Amino acid sequence: MPQLRRDPVIGRWVIVSTERAKRPNDFARPKEEPPDDRCPFCEGRESETPAEIFALREGEPTPNSPGWQVRVVPSIAPVLKIGTYINRYGRGLYDAMSGLGAHEIIIESPQHIPNMADLSTEQIEKALSATKERIVDLDNDPLFKYTLYFKNYGKAAGASSIRHSHSQLIALPVNPKRVKEELRGAKRYFDYKERCIFCDIISQETGTKERIVFESDNFLAFCPFASRFPFETWILPKKHSADFDKIEESIIIDLARALKATLMKLKRVLNDPPYNYILHTAPYRTPKRGHWRTIDEDFHWHFEIMPRLSGVAGFEWGSGFYINSIPPEEAAKYLRKTKVQL
Amino acid sequence: MPQLRRDPVIGRWVIVSTERAKRPNDFARPKEEPPDDRCPFCEGRESETPAEIFALREGEPTPNSPGWQVRVVPSIAPVLKIGTYINRYGRGLYDAMSGLGAHEIIIESPQHIPNMADLSTEQIEKALSATKERIVDLDNDPLFKYTLYFKNYGKAAGASSIRHSHSQLIALPVNPKRVKEELRGAKRYFDYKERCIFCDIISQETGTKERIVFESDNFLAFCPFASRFPFETWILPKKHSADFDKIEESIIIDLARALKATLMKLKRVLNDPPYNYILHTAPYRTPKRGHWRTIDEDFHWHFEIMPRLSGVAGFEWGSGFYINSIPPEEAAKYLRKTKVQL
Repeated sequence: MPQLRRDPVIGRWVIVSTERAKRPNDFARPKEEPPDDRCPFCEGRESETPAEIFALREGEPTPNSPGWQVRVVPSIAPVLKIGTYINRYGRGLYDAMSGLGAHEIIIESPQHIPNMADLSTEQIEKALSATKERIVDLDNDPLFKYTLYFKNYGKAAGASSIRHSHSQLIALPVNPKRVKEELRGAKRYFDYKERCIFCDIISQETGTKERIVFESDNFLAFCPFASRFPFETWILPKKHSADFDKIEESIIIDLARALKATLMKLKRVLNDPPYNYILHTAPYRTPKRGHWRTIDEDFHWHFEIMPRLSGVAGFEWGSGFYINSIPPEEAAKYLRKTKVQL
Repeated sequence: MPQLRRDPVIGRWVIVSTERAKRPNDFARPKEEPPDDRCPFCEGRESETPAEIFALREGEPTPNSPGWQVRVVPSIAPVLKIGTYINRYGRGLYDAMSGLGAHEIIIESPQHIPNMADLSTEQIEKALSATKERIVDLDNDPLFKYTLYFKNYGKAAGASSIRHSHSQLIALPVNPKRVKEELRGAKRYFDYKERCIFCDIISQETGTKERIVFESDNFLAFCPFASRFPFETWILPKKHSADFDKIEESIIIDLARALKATLMKLKRVLNDPPYNYILHTAPYRTPKRGHWRTIDEDFHWHFEIMPRLSGVAGFEWGSGFYINSIPPEEAAKYLRKTKVQL
C-alpha cells in the first residue's frame, strides 16, 4: 500500500510509493513507447487493459468489447489503492496515512488520436460527460474527500508512454493543498464583498476583454492576470457553480467547445506544445464549521490549462515564486486572433 | 519596468515581463549555447559581462580584470530592475506593483566547470561567502523584503544557455508565498511546542538515521519525510539559526562540504542529473505584529535540493499535489552509501 505523508511545516500531503522502489538508473532511462499500431487504448484491444469500470456505448452494451465511445479503466500503475479503512498514524513528529484512493484512466476516444485538441467537439463532450459520471460515482465512497481530474499531454508534461488521448482521475482521502488555498482565498473575498471572487473576475475580464481567449454563451477562456506560465489559460463557467459534477448535461457541449477551441489555439500558436490541464472543483465533503461553510456561494469550478514550454520554470517549484516572460495580455492576443474550426 | 502581479485568489506574486514580449515561436526554439571556449563567465573575458558588483580577489584588486575567485555581476536579462520607489496600484480587483528589485549572477569559479559538484570544497566556500556578502549588502536597500538565492543546473532545470557554474540572487519587494507558508507553519508549531520544528526534525532524523545522506559537525543533509521529488535532499545547520546571512564565517567551509558531498552523490547516483537548489531563509524585515514576531526562534534556514528527473512531475504545479515514486528512505540509502572524495 502506498503512503500519504504530510509535510510537517507547510501541511502539504505527498503520495509516496513504498513498494520496491525504482532503482536510480530507471530515472535516467526514457520510458518505452508502444508502437502506435499496438496501442492498448485503441478500439479492438480492450483485453490489453484492466477490465473497464465504465464505458459510453450506443446500442447493446457488452463490456470490454469494441463499440465504445469513451472507456474508463483502472490505472495499471495506480498511485493509490482502493481499501476499506484509513489508518492515520504518527512517526515521531511526522504524520502519515494509508494511501487509500482510486486511480482511473479515461480513454477519450476509440481512435488513436494523441492530442485532445484533435478530437471532435462531440467526442470531447462524451469524454467530459463520462468524467462527470465517474466523479459523481467516486463520491459514493465516504472515504474520498476529493477527486483530481487532470491531463498530461506530451513527455515534458509528464505524460505516460501511451500517446492515445487520455486523462486521469485520482480520488483522494485528503484535499490537495492548492484546493484548500483557493477555498480560503475565495472565502476571505466573499466575507468582505459578499460576492464570489471568480464571478467578479469574469465580470472584469469580459469588461476589459484584453485577456480573453474564447467566449461562448456559457464559458469564458482567458489568460489570468497573474499567469504563472506563458500562455496559461483558464476556463470558467459564466454561471456561478462550485461543483463541476453538478454541471447541466445541456451545457457540456459548450464546455467541450471552449476546451477544444483553447487547446487548438495553443496547438496552432505554440506548435503542438506539451500541456497539463487540471480541474479545480469544490471538495466532496466540507466541514460544518470553519473555513469552507459558504463554499457553495464562494467557490467556482474552473479548468487551468498550462502549456509546458521548454526552458521555462526552473526554481518555481520550490520557491512558490514565478517569473512569466510573456504578459498574459500578449499571450491572449495571439490566442484570440488565431482562428480555429470547431 | 516589469510588473509584480498578485493572484487575487491565493495571493501569490508573479513577476510578469511587460516589455516587448517574446513571440510564440521563440518558446519552441532551443536557446543557443555559446561554445565552451567563448564562455563570457571564464577568467579573461571580464569585459563580456556587465561591470562586476562584487568580487573575491587576492592581492591588489583591479575590478573587471583577471585574478578573481568569485565574481558577481548584474544579470543581462534582469527579471526585476533597481529603482527608488515602489508604485502599488489596483486594476479593478487585481493588485500590481512596479517590478522593482535586483537580479545578480554569482560566477562561482574562474574556471569553466559546469557542475558545482566538481568545484573544490574551498571554491564552494568562497562562492557561499560571496553569496552571503551580497545578501547582507542587498539588505541595505529598505525596499527589499527578501532575497532568493537559487541555482538552476542543466536545461531541464531551467538553466540559462551558459554552462559555466553560476547561481542567482533575486532581491524582491515582497516575500515569496512558499516562505510565508513556512514561516506560518513553523510559528504554529512553536506556539504549541515552544520549540523550533526544524530543530525537532533534526533531532528525529539523527535518531532514526534512515533518511540521512550526509552528516558533519555543523550540518545535516537528509531526504525529507514528505519528499515531493525522488532524491530531494535538504541541508540544515544543526545549530538553530533563522538567517543564512548570519552564518559564522568559520562554518561556511563545513556547509561547502555538505553541499559538495550532496551534489557529488546526486551526480554519481543519478548520472549527472539536472537540479535546482533554493535557499530558504528568513525575510529581511518582519512585521512587528502578526505572524512572524517570533521568527528568530521559530524559523531555521536550510537548502532544498531537487534533482529534475525526466518524466517525473506533471500536474503537480497546478494542484499542489505531489506523487513521489521512490521512498525517501530508499533514496537516502543510495545516496548515503555512495562514497565521494571531498
